[in-house]
Amino acid sequence: MAAVSTLVSAQDVARAREAVVQGAPLVQCLTNSVVQTITANALLAVGAAPAMVDNVQEAAAFATVASAVLVNVGTLDETKAQAMALAAGSAREHGRPWVLDPVAVGGLEFRTRIARDLLAHAPTVVRANASEVLGLAGAGAGGRGVDATHGTEDAVEAARGLSGRTGGVVAVSGPVDVLIHGERVVRVLGGHALLTRTTGAGCSLGALVAAYAAAEPDPLVAAAAAHLHVAVAAERAAARADRPGAFATAWIDELDAVGPRELRDGAGRLA
Amino acid sequence: MAAVSTLVSAQDVARAREAVVQGAPLVQCLTNSVVQTITANALLAVGAAPAMVDNVQEAAAFATVASAVLVNVGTLDETKAQAMALAAGSAREHGRPWVLDPVAVGGLEFRTRIARDLLAHAPTVVRANASEVLGLAGAGAGGRGVDATHGTEDAVEAARGLSGRTGGVVAVSGPVDVLIHGERVVRVLGGHALLTRTTGAGCSLGALVAAYAAAEPDPLVAAAAAHLHVAVAAERAAARADRPGAFATAWIDELDAVGPRELRDGAGRLA
Amino acid sequence: MAAVSTLVSAQDVARAREAVVQGAPLVQCLTNSVVQTITANALLAVGAAPAMVDNVQEAAAFATVASAVLVNVGTLDETKAQAMALAAGSAREHGRPWVLDPVAVGGLEFRTRIARDLLAHAPTVVRANASEVLGLAGAGAGGRGVDATHGTEDAVEAARGLSGRTGGVVAVSGPVDVLIHGERVVRVLGGHALLTRTTGAGCSLGALVAAYAAAEPDPLVAAAAAHLHVAVAAERAAARADRPGAFATAWIDELDAVGPRELRDGAGRLA
Repeated sequence: MAAVSTLVSAQDVARAREAVVQGAPLVQCLTNSVVQTITANALLAVGAAPAMVDNVQEAAAFATVASAVLVNVGTLDETKAQAMALAAGSAREHGRPWVLDPVAVGGLEFRTRIARDLLAHAPTVVRANASEVLGLAGAGAGGRGVDATHGTEDAVEAARGLSGRTGGVVAVSGPVDVLIHGERVVRVLGGHALLTRTTGAGCSLGALVAAYAAAEPDPLVAAAAAHLHVAVAAERAAARADRPGAFATAWIDELDAVGPRELRDGAGRLA
Repeated sequence: MAAVSTLVSAQDVARAREAVVQGAPLVQCLTNSVVQTITANALLAVGAAPAMVDNVQEAAAFATVASAVLVNVGTLDETKAQAMALAAGSAREHGRPWVLDPVAVGGLEFRTRIARDLLAHAPTVVRANASEVLGLAGAGAGGRGVDATHGTEDAVEAARGLSGRTGGVVAVSGPVDVLIHGERVVRVLGGHALLTRTTGAGCSLGALVAAYAAAEPDPLVAAAAAHLHVAVAAERAAARADRPGAFATAWIDELDAVGPRELRDGAGRLA
Repeated sequence: MAAVSTLVSAQDVARAREAVVQGAPLVQCLTNSVVQTITANALLAVGAAPAMVDNVQEAAAFATVASAVLVNVGTLDETKAQAMALAAGSAREHGRPWVLDPVAVGGLEFRTRIARDLLAHAPTVVRANASEVLGLAGAGAGGRGVDATHGTEDAVEAARGLSGRTGGVVAVSGPVDVLIHGERVVRVLGGHALLTRTTGAGCSLGALVAAYAAAEPDPLVAAAAAHLHVAVAAERAAARADRPGAFATAWIDELDAVGPRELRDGAGRLA
């Protein structure tokens, strides 16, 4: 496949993948308790290093040491919310890229307020499904828990608005991912439905976006490369594992196996 | 095998399985941190949707949106206990089925008090091992952590007493599961010892009972179908994976593979 | 291979393995949320029983029932730190062996203070990487999160000092593990680099040390047997799984498969 995106090239994603391998970015994850294990294993698989430092005493200080920070509001309480604000603020202040994953925002008041407050720290990338983007932007009632009840294209306007406010990328995940950075738009095709039957695959993608954003200066390239990496690995995993248990294991293996060459070869999925 | 239970038929369990597939019930899980991942993956494998909303701010409101609620007291603190009471109360008030899994109750005072207090919200199903049922009923000193030190038949009287108090099902898990609903008793044979060497298999069963209870009006049929589903999947998994690591993966695959037909064909395990 | 250590023999490690199988020690784990699942599965795989009782209400009482206690400071907050002190104190008072795993200590002030305070309860074994041992001993600035930035031999002096203070074993994990008990030193060779790409493998080793310490009176033999068990299982797993996803599953299988005979046959790795 030939790359068809004029904004992000096959060379761009291969370079970003190589930079992750070379840099071994340390990603501080303040993420939900359901997905911590798979998130850490996904980061290790691509050559990054995870550190789940998410308490109020250490979150801000560690963000100055980390290469990037992930904030995922999936299982939240008041104390974790404080730690998230501290980490995001510290990342912003010290020039570290950080990613916001507003899990189930829109449908639940508490986390919606917390996630909207975090926007003040200007996330480098917001990664979410369509319902969550609408909920975060204040444009919809949100989804049913973690499931998107809107199509990705329904969220493009809201995503563009959010991107304008934060100056960062807004990546809307779905059967086709839509990544928006101001006026720039990249779509990522491919992937596999078994990803949606693997707890934490989407949340792990958020962490991989953070790893790529640490290694690659253009946040749109970083986000596109991470999404493409996940999609290519999922297709390869599904080719040899057609049920969700075996798929989850194979997907971690394929995150490891997909290097710069495989990512370059898969860049035809970018549009 | 021909179904031998006169209370729950092969057609009943097949119908319940079909209803889970069709309804894709959203199961709110307030469960222990050790088993959140496998619980979510088990729910996804059978066609249900997990949502681990377990904070005091969101627990009650989400229970009005969820199809069913699971409360598992495996890793407890005061705040989570509050969220559990809120979710259980909200589920009860809004007519949502909810399942109580009183992990290690009996041996530990704090959780024993919390779990007994939750009985006031009349769980649709209590799922536990024999020691936990005895501990919850106030009839025994409980087990050694999560291990049952009593046989299931030792807990039948206590289970019948609990069922009388709550009006719900009490399911006593063991080599033979004994499910009690007032005067109705169903036993589920089969399964595999590797389930006891897989962290979270029993806790995931509690979540699957909740999914089935959302889809099937008769709580005894729902509980029997969920236990049968787990047992049949375990036998199929053990046939191709004889060690606990591979077994855990295969079991998730087989939870996916066991549909209405496979459950109907396995109903001879009901007695 | 013939055993070359004069301090811990092939017979010693085989006897310790047999004692774990026969005793099925109950290991209370106060450990970080990222690794709870793999830790529990690793304990089950070797024939031990896990119980993640880590709240302030139950931690001290449960330590009097448990066979051994693991304290791992990987994801810490004030309340968990209190529970850890209660469990460690109770274990010490009631003659239960307990293991301290000072994850990322040295680099982060909060956990460094907590972990140093726990030393007052005289851990039977400290299990850590070189940077963490240096951090715990006050001799270094610590690592980058969970990664060691020092070699194991750099930490031998600090480990010997710690061992002198606690009277227990200090086990420094690395490509070659160095286990120190006063003047006694045992090295464990072997293992596999894929362990470092599996979240929770090192933390699970801490739990296995606790299981062995419950079953074997000599803490140096117990620690050596646990490290050897992990190393042999890793080599066997890597022989059939060359990527991290499949490796993690195979490693659990091999922890189960490695019995007294396999451990005795592998004792040539002890030096």
